[in-house]
Amino acid sequence: MTADVPSPPDAPASARTTVRRVSDRAIYTDERLLSILSAGLIAHVGVTTVDGPIVLPMAYGVRPAANGGHEIVVHGAVGNAMLRAGRSVDVCLTVTIVDGLVVARTPFHNSMNYRSVVVRGTATALDDPDDKRAALQAINDHVAPIWDQARAPSDSDLKKTLVLAVPLTEASGKARSGDPIDEEGDLDGPHWSGIVPLRTTWGEPYPAADLRVDAPVPTPVADLAGRDAHAEI
Amino acid sequence: MTADVPSPPDAPASARTTVRRVSDRAIYTDERLLSILSAGLIAHVGVTTVDGPIVLPMAYGVRPAANGGHEIVVHGAVGNAMLRAGRSVDVCLTVTIVDGLVVARTPFHNSMNYRSVVVRGTATALDDPDDKRAALQAINDHVAPIWDQARAPSDSDLKKTLVLAVPLTEASGKARSGDPIDEEGDLDGPHWSGIVPLRTTWGEPYPAADLRVDAPVPTPVADLAGRDAHAEI
Repeated sequence: MTADVPSPPDAPASARTTVRRVSDRAIYTDERLLSILSAGLIAHVGVTTVDGPIVLPMAYGVRPAANGGHEIVVHGAVGNAMLRAGRSVDVCLTVTIVDGLVVARTPFHNSMNYRSVVVRGTATALDDPDDKRAALQAINDHVAPIWDQARAPSDSDLKKTLVLAVPLTEASGKARSGDPIDEEGDLDGPHWSGIVPLRTTWGEPYPAADLRVDAPVPTPVADLAGRDAHAEI
Repeated sequence: MTADVPSPPDAPASARTTVRRVSDRAIYTDERLLSILSAGLIAHVGVTTVDGPIVLPMAYGVRPAANGGHEIVVHGAVGNAMLRAGRSVDVCLTVTIVDGLVVARTPFHNSMNYRSVVVRGTATALDDPDDKRAALQAINDHVAPIWDQARAPSDSDLKKTLVLAVPLTEASGKARSGDPIDEEGDLDGPHWSGIVPLRTTWGEPYPAADLRVDAPVPTPVADLAGRDAHAEI
């Protein structure tokens, strides 16, 4: 019995986003990809540099794209070494959530339960200040809608920030859940097998040491406490 | 007052592993890099392909290297599309742990608390079966020492598995902890600021549905329950 998540019978967007290994775990439907992206916290963004590949962690947001579909947005300093190579850059953004340790009867079948999305495409810098602002709000509000609870960014803040969008047109996902999949010959052996679930939970918010005004904890921040940080919405 | 982790005054191993942005958060000492790596669960591994960069999540282990220092080891199927390009491949491995959400008085200073390590170098396939076995044990035992609790891998298992090692000679880390760093002019504004900690905890292990022998939960697996999955050792 395989305990994998059933894959929606959809097609990959391109050859380079076709899942090659254990392809029965592949996910290609926009709905499920967006759902996993809603549950992730950071993207690992890879680009090719003259020094070879580099992968850096970044906060991200997801929003409807101007020409339909959705796009992922990330931001960095204007001087970001990785992104300053050009106004548009070929990237791979990968979001992974680890859900548990899969302990099989033999190491060859040990695994992790996880959900992941891989997006390949061209990251394009946003120029329009209003568009940049909207994209930054998508990034800031990805975990909780806190944008409106704060002092709005200044023009100077905006100028210092590079915001890039990557269309969600070439994306694929992969997920594993449930039990180990052992070999028939090992089932009567003496070894235990099972799952150790991993829980990622927001704790109780606490104020900065320099908070000197009587400001209440914003509701979206207070509401995080005790919540599964990787719940899909 | 900055609440960042103080950086050990060590030097980067190479120009391409020098931290460029917010470089006072840089980490270059082997001891601290190994400590963060001990606390991570997966590496995001980036390579350059003819189709552009790709980043995939992988389990990893760390072990002493034959020529001194340490190396990271990862494994995949022999047919792994990403790794089959050659016996050695230029890679970037990035391990990131998210520790909390940093809520500032203005979105520009929102952040996350995190620990990360970036390793750049050449991944080389291991050929010697004993060496492969030892590397696979390092990967399997990264979370908990479960290798000896299971049926040993067969020669066939080993042949199907590609194991790659990347020396930890070109690595750098970055960490942020503590409070938001707001602008002086915002401190008397009406906005809250503070931290929402993120806790990643192993749950109670449970047996596979097809466990039909009276095997006890291995002690290293049972011991995970309730533990901080990102504790450094």
